[in-house]
Amino acid sequence: MLKVGIVGGTGYTGAELLRILVDHPDAEVAMITSRGEAGVAVDELFPSLRGRLDLKFTEPDTEQLAACDVVFFATPHNVAMNSVPELLKAGARVIDLSADFRIRDAKLWSEWYREEHVCPNLLEEAVYGLPEIFGDKLPQARLVACAGCYPTAIQLGFWPLLEQKLVDFNSLIASAASGVSGAGRQAKVNNLFTEVSENFKAYGVSGHRHMPEIDQGLSWAAGESVSAVFTPHLLPMIRGIHATLYAKLRDPAVAIDELQYLFEERFQNAPFVDVMPLGSHPETRSVKGSNKLRLALHRPPQSDMVVVLAAEDNLVKGASGQAIQCMNLMFGLEETAGLGAIAVLP
Amino acid sequence: MLKVGIVGGTGYTGAELLRILVDHPDAEVAMITSRGEAGVAVDELFPSLRGRLDLKFTEPDTEQLAACDVVFFATPHNVAMNSVPELLKAGARVIDLSADFRIRDAKLWSEWYREEHVCPNLLEEAVYGLPEIFGDKLPQARLVACAGCYPTAIQLGFWPLLEQKLVDFNSLIASAASGVSGAGRQAKVNNLFTEVSENFKAYGVSGHRHMPEIDQGLSWAAGESVSAVFTPHLLPMIRGIHATLYAKLRDPAVAIDELQYLFEERFQNAPFVDVMPLGSHPETRSVKGSNKLRLALHRPPQSDMVVVLAAEDNLVKGASGQAIQCMNLMFGLEETAGLGAIAVLP
Amino acid sequence: MLKVGIVGGTGYTGAELLRILVDHPDAEVAMITSRGEAGVAVDELFPSLRGRLDLKFTEPDTEQLAACDVVFFATPHNVAMNSVPELLKAGARVIDLSADFRIRDAKLWSEWYREEHVCPNLLEEAVYGLPEIFGDKLPQARLVACAGCYPTAIQLGFWPLLEQKLVDFNSLIASAASGVSGAGRQAKVNNLFTEVSENFKAYGVSGHRHMPEIDQGLSWAAGESVSAVFTPHLLPMIRGIHATLYAKLRDPAVAIDELQYLFEERFQNAPFVDVMPLGSHPETRSVKGSNKLRLALHRPPQSDMVVVLAAEDNLVKGASGQAIQCMNLMFGLEETAGLGAIAVLP
Amino acid sequence: MLKVGIVGGTGYTGAELLRILVDHPDAEVAMITSRGEAGVAVDELFPSLRGRLDLKFTEPDTEQLAACDVVFFATPHNVAMNSVPELLKAGARVIDLSADFRIRDAKLWSEWYREEHVCPNLLEEAVYGLPEIFGDKLPQARLVACAGCYPTAIQLGFWPLLEQKLVDFNSLIASAASGVSGAGRQAKVNNLFTEVSENFKAYGVSGHRHMPEIDQGLSWAAGESVSAVFTPHLLPMIRGIHATLYAKLRDPAVAIDELQYLFEERFQNAPFVDVMPLGSHPETRSVKGSNKLRLALHRPPQSDMVVVLAAEDNLVKGASGQAIQCMNLMFGLEETAGLGAIAVLP
Repeated sequence: MLKVGIVGGTGYTGAELLRILVDHPDAEVAMITSRGEAGVAVDELFPSLRGRLDLKFTEPDTEQLAACDVVFFATPHNVAMNSVPELLKAGARVIDLSADFRIRDAKLWSEWYREEHVCPNLLEEAVYGLPEIFGDKLPQARLVACAGCYPTAIQLGFWPLLEQKLVDFNSLIASAASGVSGAGRQAKVNNLFTEVSENFKAYGVSGHRHMPEIDQGLSWAAGESVSAVFTPHLLPMIRGIHATLYAKLRDPAVAIDELQYLFEERFQNAPFVDVMPLGSHPETRSVKGSNKLRLALHRPPQSDMVVVLAAEDNLVKGASGQAIQCMNLMFGLEETAGLGAIAVLP
Repeated sequence: MLKVGIVGGTGYTGAELLRILVDHPDAEVAMITSRGEAGVAVDELFPSLRGRLDLKFTEPDTEQLAACDVVFFATPHNVAMNSVPELLKAGARVIDLSADFRIRDAKLWSEWYREEHVCPNLLEEAVYGLPEIFGDKLPQARLVACAGCYPTAIQLGFWPLLEQKLVDFNSLIASAASGVSGAGRQAKVNNLFTEVSENFKAYGVSGHRHMPEIDQGLSWAAGESVSAVFTPHLLPMIRGIHATLYAKLRDPAVAIDELQYLFEERFQNAPFVDVMPLGSHPETRSVKGSNKLRLALHRPPQSDMVVVLAAEDNLVKGASGQAIQCMNLMFGLEETAGLGAIAVLP
Repeated sequence: MLKVGIVGGTGYTGAELLRILVDHPDAEVAMITSRGEAGVAVDELFPSLRGRLDLKFTEPDTEQLAACDVVFFATPHNVAMNSVPELLKAGARVIDLSADFRIRDAKLWSEWYREEHVCPNLLEEAVYGLPEIFGDKLPQARLVACAGCYPTAIQLGFWPLLEQKLVDFNSLIASAASGVSGAGRQAKVNNLFTEVSENFKAYGVSGHRHMPEIDQGLSWAAGESVSAVFTPHLLPMIRGIHATLYAKLRDPAVAIDELQYLFEERFQNAPFVDVMPLGSHPETRSVKGSNKLRLALHRPPQSDMVVVLAAEDNLVKGASGQAIQCMNLMFGLEETAGLGAIAVLP
Repeated sequence: MLKVGIVGGTGYTGAELLRILVDHPDAEVAMITSRGEAGVAVDELFPSLRGRLDLKFTEPDTEQLAACDVVFFATPHNVAMNSVPELLKAGARVIDLSADFRIRDAKLWSEWYREEHVCPNLLEEAVYGLPEIFGDKLPQARLVACAGCYPTAIQLGFWPLLEQKLVDFNSLIASAASGVSGAGRQAKVNNLFTEVSENFKAYGVSGHRHMPEIDQGLSWAAGESVSAVFTPHLLPMIRGIHATLYAKLRDPAVAIDELQYLFEERFQNAPFVDVMPLGSHPETRSVKGSNKLRLALHRPPQSDMVVVLAAEDNLVKGASGQAIQCMNLMFGLEETAGLGAIAVLP
C-alpha cells in the first residue's frame, strides 16, 4: 500500500485526488495539508466524502511528507518549487500538478509566471507527466511535472500528425474551451455563477500561460520548433475541456481513413485514449469524472484541413487522474488502477 | 456471478443501472432490451460506456429474460405489469423501477394512472423496495416495487417522527424539488434546455402521481392513515432531489438533540442514510452519482415545527442505485456491493 | 427630467438601476459612485451598456449627491445609515435598497445585523417601499426603505389571506428559493459557478436576516404579531425568486374561487401584480428582467391548506425595479414609467 | 402604424418577434398564425406576455395575411416557399426568417435541404437580409431572406478583411458556438436539458446547412469564390452565438491598429455593430436580448494570423431583431426603432 501525501488539499484538484485515492486498491492517503484549514475534517469541506475518509487537514510538515512514498502538490504555481528540493533531498518522490516544473526553459517560465524560478536545476530532471508519450520515463522519475489540462488535450490530439509530419507546422490552430473548474476554487468575481452562467467568451487570445507549454510539447512531437495559435474560451459548465484542432495537410489527397488508422495505431496501448469511429463528435459529458481522452477526426468539405476533436475532464485526465496515472507507472502498478470510473451521464 | 437482464435500457434509469452494474463485483449484465434500438450497440447510445460494455440492445424475449437470475424493468409505468406475471411464472425474480406495483390498492392506482391494473393479485405480494424499512422482506421477494424518487426522500425523512408519533399527523408538508432527469429521456418540449434552464416553478400542486405512494408509506410509518401536502418543483439541473419537510411537534418542548439522536439511532444500520450533524444543510451535489440519502434536522425560530432536509440523487438512491441495493439484499450479497461510488464534486 | 444619483453602482442592483433608468422617460442618471472603481467608465464594467451610457464612476460626494432630486443606495447594509442623515439634511430624497431602514425596531435590527444602528430616529419616518401596500405614503416620503427580495414575494403572497383573517396565523410557512444574484457581486467561494451549478440546498433554516422583515410585514397585514417559518434555498440560476406559501384555512370549506376573487380584487389596481388563472404555476423565467410579481392559488387535495405560488425577478421587483416604482410614485410620475420591459423568454 | 402578420408564432423566433413588436413605436401585430395552437391565447403559451398582448393564434389565411403591410415567416425551412408566391401576388411584402430564400443557387439549396425549391424564380429577387451590407436594397424589397444566425456573425466578422483583400482567402476558419435556442422549440431528445447541460460538443463538422450560406456571403465580400472551414459547437446555455474567426494575413507586418481602424470605419454607420476596443473579449451575455453584434480583433503571438471574436444573440441579431431591423429599413422607419433594449445582465 503506497502512502500518499497531498499538499494543498482544499482546491478542486486536491478534492479530486481524494475522490480517486479513497477507492484506489494500492494507495492510501496518509496526510493532506492546508495552511488555511489545518485541524478541519476533510469531509466538512467536502461533504461528498462523509463516511469514506476520516482525515483532517494538517499544517505542511516536510519531515512527515518525506515519510510518504509519494507527495502530490495540488497547489497554485509557485508553491511546489519552494518545497520540492527539500523533499527530494529527504528521499520523497514528487508529482506536481502545478505549472512549476513543466517548462524546461527557466527564462521562458519566468516571462509567463513573472517570478524567478527557485530551482531551475530541477527543470531538466523533471519528467513531463504525459504518460501516453513519456510513460517509459516514469518508473525512474523522482519528480513529475504533470501536463496541464489544455496542453494534454491539444498535444495528444496533434501528436500523431506532427510526429508523422503530415501537416504544415505553420498552420496549427487550437480553439479550445474549458469548464469553470479549471480556474480553481479561489474567490474571484469573474468565476461567480452570476458572471459565468448563460455566457460564453474567449480569453487570453493575445497571450495565455498555457501557450509555452503547448508549444514545447508540439515541438517535441514535431522534432523542431513549432508554435500553435491557441484561443481558450470559458464554458458555462463545471467540468470538461473540448479542443477543436485545425491543421493543413501537406498532402490534401490523404484519405481520412489513413489518418484514422494512424491515430488508432498510435494510441492502441494507451488505455485512456479513445479514438472514436469516423464521424463522431466527442462530448465532454461522456468523460465527466473519468480519466478518458476521446478523439475524433474530420475532414471538412472543400478544404485541405484536418480537424481533430478532443474531449477530456479537466480535473481528471487534465489533472488529478493523470497524476494518479503517473503514480501508477512510477511505482509499477497497473496503469489503470483506481482509474476505472465511468462518466456519470446524464 | 448473478446474471442480470434489463428491460427498457434506453432511458436514464436503464443507463444508470448499466453504469453501476458494469463495476459490480457479483453481477453482470446478460441482456438489455429495447424495441426501438434493437441491434444498436449500447455504447453508441451512451458513449460514456465505450470500452467498458460490449453489448447490443435486443428485442424483449421472455424466455431469454427468464433465464436471468434477476430482471430489472426500467420502463415507463404500464409496461412491467404486462410482462411480469409471465416472467414470475417462468421462475424469474423481478425488480420493477416503475410505478406499476408500488400502490397496494389497485383502485387507487387506476385513479392516478388512468388504466386498469393488469395483475392486481400481485400487488399484495410485491415488496415495496425501500430497503431501510423493508429490507428483511427482500431475501424472500419474487417481485420488488422500487420506491419512487420523491417518495424515498420524503418517507425516510418523515419516518422516525411518524413512527414515534412525535408530530401532528395532520400537519405534514413536503416541499420538494427535482432535477430534470426525473422526467426521463422522452422528447418533450417542457424538458428542453431552453424551457428549463434559468427557470424554477412548482408543478402538480393540486395533484401529482407520487401523492398516493407518499401517503401510503407515511401511513405505514404512522400506523394509521396519514396524508401530506406535497408540492414538487422543477430545478434547472440534471440530477438531484431535495425535500424540505415540515411537521408540527406534538410537544414543542422537545429538544432538537433528542430528535437528532432518534434519527441517528433509527438509521444506524442503514449504510446509505447519512444523518448529518445538527445545523447542516445537505447539498444535492454531495450525493450526485452516489447512493446516499443525506438528512439534516432543524428547529426554525419562534415555531413549534421541526424541519427535515433531505437530499438524494434521483437516479441513484431514487431509482437505479436503490434497485441494485434491493438486488444485493434479495441475493444475500453485501448491501453496499457495487454502490460505493463517491459523488463527483464539483 | 429627474436627476438621479446612485451610491454603490458596481453591484448587481446598481447595474440593474442603470439598465432601467437609461430608458426611463422622466429620469436620467446624473452620477454614480464607487470608491473602488472611481474614474472607470461604467460600460467598461458592464459592457451591456456600451453605446447607451457615457458616464464614469466617481467618489461619493455628499454635496453633489444632494444636488440630485433623488439618491438611490445600492450598497451592502450598513453603508446607507452612515450617509443618509446628512443627505436628508441637505434636502435630498433617498431610496435605500439595502436593509438599513427596513426594520422599525432598532434593537431587533441590531440583533440580526450585529451593529448599533446609527440613526434609529429615522426608522419611524422611513416608508417601507412596498408600493402595493404603502403607495399612498410615497408622495410625501423623504426616505424609502425598499422591501427586500424574499419579503416582497412572501408578504404580497400572504397579504390578502392575513388581512381578511382567513388563515390560522400560527400556520404560516414560506418555502422559498432564490437565484444566485441575490447574493450580490462579491467574490465568495460559496457563489462560484463551480459551487452552485448542478446543486440545490436550503440555507439559514435555523435563522436568516430576512426573517424579522418578513414577520414585520406579515404582522402589519394581520393586525397582530405573526411569525412565519421561512426556509430559503439557493437555486442554480442567476435571477428569480419563487415562494411556495402554505397556510391553514380557518374554514376549510372556503372555495378556491372565493380566494381567487379576493386576490384579484385586492390587486386590481396593482399594475405589477399578476394574479394568474386558477391552476397556474408561475415560472420565474416569465418575469426575468420584468417588474412583475406573478401569483397563483392552489388547494392541495385532502388538506385544509391553501398554497400560494409567487414568482418575481429578485433584481427587478425584488430590488431595482421596485425602487424605481417607488421613485415614480414619490415624484408623481406614472407608476409604470420605465418599467414596461417584457421578460426575455426563453 | 404598420400592420404586421406573423406566420408560425409558436417557436422561439416567433415569440421574440412578439416581444420586440409589442413595444415597437411604429408597428403592431395584427395577426399571428399557428396550425397547432389556433384559438389559443398567445399569453397562455408565453406567460411572459401576460398583460401586454391580447391576441389569439389563428389558422393561416392568405387573404388576411395579405391585408397586412408586412408578413414575417418564423417557420421551419420549407414552409415559406410554399406560401410566399401567393402573398407577393396579393401585394404583401414578406420577411422570411427561415432558410428558404437565402441561397441564390436553387440546386445548391436542394442539395443541402433535400427538397426541390418551389419558386426558384424568386431567389434572384430576394434581398439577403444583412442590413449592414445590403441595407440600401431594403427600401425596394418585396421579399427579404434574413441572414441566418451563424452566417450573420461570421460574415460581418470577416467582411472588412475580405473586402480589402487583407487575408489569404484559402485560410478562413470559423470556430463558432451557439446556445440551444438556435435549435428551435421542437421536442427532440438531443435538446433536452439532461442532454445539453454540463456538456459541450462540436456537431456537423463534416457538413452543416449553414456552410453554403456562409460561403455565399464571404464570396460576395471577397469578390470571388471563397470557402471557410466552419465548425459549429453546442453550448450549455439558452441564447448567444460566439464566433472565433481565423485568417492568415497576406502581409503579417500589418499592425493591429490598422485593422482596428478599418473595422471601426467600415461599421461607423452601423448602429448595431460594436467594434470593441483592442484587447476586448466580447461576452455573449453582453448582448443577451439585444440586437447588437460585438466584434473584437486580436493578433495571437508568434503567428501571422488575425483573430476576430464576434458575439450576438442568436434570437435577436441572429433572427428576430435583424428581421425587424430589415422591416424598419423597408418602410423608411428609424433603423433602430423598437430595437433599443439593453442586455439583461447578469
